[in-house]
Amino acid sequence: MRRVVVLSAIQNLVNGLRGKLPNCVIYECKSANDEELRNAEIIIGDYDLIGPIVYDLKKVKLLHGTWAGVDKLLPFVDANNPPPFPVVRYSGEQFGRIISEYVVASIVNHERELFRVYENQRESNWCRDGTIMHHRIISDLNIGVMGIGSIGSVLGQLLKHFGAKVNVLGRRPSIDKEEFKYVHEYYPNERLKDFLSKCDYVINTLPSTNATIGLLNGDVLKSCYERKSIFINVGRGTIIAEADLANAIKNRWISAAYLDVFHEEPLPKENILWRIPEVKITPHVAAVSRTVDVVDQFAKNLELFDAGKPIPTKIDFQRGY
Amino acid sequence: MRRVVVLSAIQNLVNGLRGKLPNCVIYECKSANDEELRNAEIIIGDYDLIGPIVYDLKKVKLLHGTWAGVDKLLPFVDANNPPPFPVVRYSGEQFGRIISEYVVASIVNHERELFRVYENQRESNWCRDGTIMHHRIISDLNIGVMGIGSIGSVLGQLLKHFGAKVNVLGRRPSIDKEEFKYVHEYYPNERLKDFLSKCDYVINTLPSTNATIGLLNGDVLKSCYERKSIFINVGRGTIIAEADLANAIKNRWISAAYLDVFHEEPLPKENILWRIPEVKITPHVAAVSRTVDVVDQFAKNLELFDAGKPIPTKIDFQRGY
Repeated sequence: MRRVVVLSAIQNLVNGLRGKLPNCVIYECKSANDEELRNAEIIIGDYDLIGPIVYDLKKVKLLHGTWAGVDKLLPFVDANNPPPFPVVRYSGEQFGRIISEYVVASIVNHERELFRVYENQRESNWCRDGTIMHHRIISDLNIGVMGIGSIGSVLGQLLKHFGAKVNVLGRRPSIDKEEFKYVHEYYPNERLKDFLSKCDYVINTLPSTNATIGLLNGDVLKSCYERKSIFINVGRGTIIAEADLANAIKNRWISAAYLDVFHEEPLPKENILWRIPEVKITPHVAAVSRTVDVVDQFAKNLELFDAGKPIPTKIDFQRGY
Repeated sequence: MRRVVVLSAIQNLVNGLRGKLPNCVIYECKSANDEELRNAEIIIGDYDLIGPIVYDLKKVKLLHGTWAGVDKLLPFVDANNPPPFPVVRYSGEQFGRIISEYVVASIVNHERELFRVYENQRESNWCRDGTIMHHRIISDLNIGVMGIGSIGSVLGQLLKHFGAKVNVLGRRPSIDKEEFKYVHEYYPNERLKDFLSKCDYVINTLPSTNATIGLLNGDVLKSCYERKSIFINVGRGTIIAEADLANAIKNRWISAAYLDVFHEEPLPKENILWRIPEVKITPHVAAVSRTVDVVDQFAKNLELFDAGKPIPTKIDFQRGY
């Protein structure tokens, strides 16, 4: 029987894999020292645990991650001499939907001030002031999605179903309009400022790579000034220095920020972001790697691997995701 | 030039109509006493203002409403002898999307406890307890939509895009599965209890009619007991007596209710619903009739009318919507 070796802190992952893959032996490692890892051909694991030993894995044919973001793995990998076996990250349509739920709720909560409404309930206050009644709806909005990968695409399509105009920023110089029907206008990275100036919402779904770290630093968000955009970050905190983000709000270049990711997590108590009224903080929960979804994705990718087909989320270490 | 006579409290409706229909004369009535109404052929108006004079309109060829719910008009109409001209209500895809935004945000806010998260921010508290981190996502849910009209259909399709299993309750004995691709299972009204027992969320989009008033009264919601469903009401408050709703929560047949509509609005200060922790109240703002959308819909329906084509939202007074 085929052996799958697991090194992960995700609850119930081993049981989930056993249920999904009854024809495999699922072996659970307690630590990175477990000798089974060195003999394993198929491994699924968390990047922070696997990273330190990734070059010691001499027999592995497929290494599958459990998170979408690979920034905890990158420090252990030499991009010019990456591991000789495929390393696949967890992501996909389901993960995109999970993030999309969070984004749609954030937009609606902001535009309709739903938190103020629920606070009004404490005073039995039937209040329809301001944007509680007269708000923008998603179909009024120009929404900019930074990233056109598996997450950004699902998000863009869902926003389009609500009637939004979806602008997209990406690395490639241009896109095939037939393939990306949901895109209103595509902007390559070089046109970042133009992109920002066209968006009521700017949603970052990008990973942390050399090309994205600090992309919004300094006064880049000044381009949001006319629309007073709202910034939603479900990608990685490194896209902007936190002092620069605070400054963009202080200068009213952007009117609010919904942040799920930060430079340091948990976000330290003394961090100023906690106390800016226009900032709403969630503790990196926009999209959690859920056992059931990781197991499903792993099983699908294992089938692709066995069939010799390309796996869409195979990591390109030069690119950094 | 064609004359359109307006009797409405909606802000800027007259200007909106003038902008959209430059080839019409838009005449604004200040009250129902305005003689122009009696000579008008095309009228657009609020039901509460038009209702008292609806049988005095001798020359009208098309009466168009400004709201989706017609319950403020029904008391003025004899269903066995309705006005001889078409009365059309405002509704449509856009209105469905607006309600859908509210519903999706309510589900996500509930499942992920986003309000508790934002309250935690006051204490700079990076807390991932309970369902903040380990929550259901929409694709885990069986969602029951009461109603398969213009609102229910748009809502059902959007929920399906998020991966939900969408069950639908309606009047007709069966539906064409090809026409309603988003429907997982269809339940005619007679199977109400069966429907309720299958749904994690029960969303009422129904109008207030003889067939819907009190539909969930008494112990009907007991059928939600196993799933501890969450009830969202964006239709009309009359679907359930408020005492029965409070009782359903007290008995834990349902675990929460997100209510936008009530028997009496504004909801009186002394109403017990304000003070039930499992109830979240919004002041009838899930979908507001917005000038821009009413104008667009009126223009579209006027085209259909001129072409002699059926208008989907023409009111059937026997049916009550």
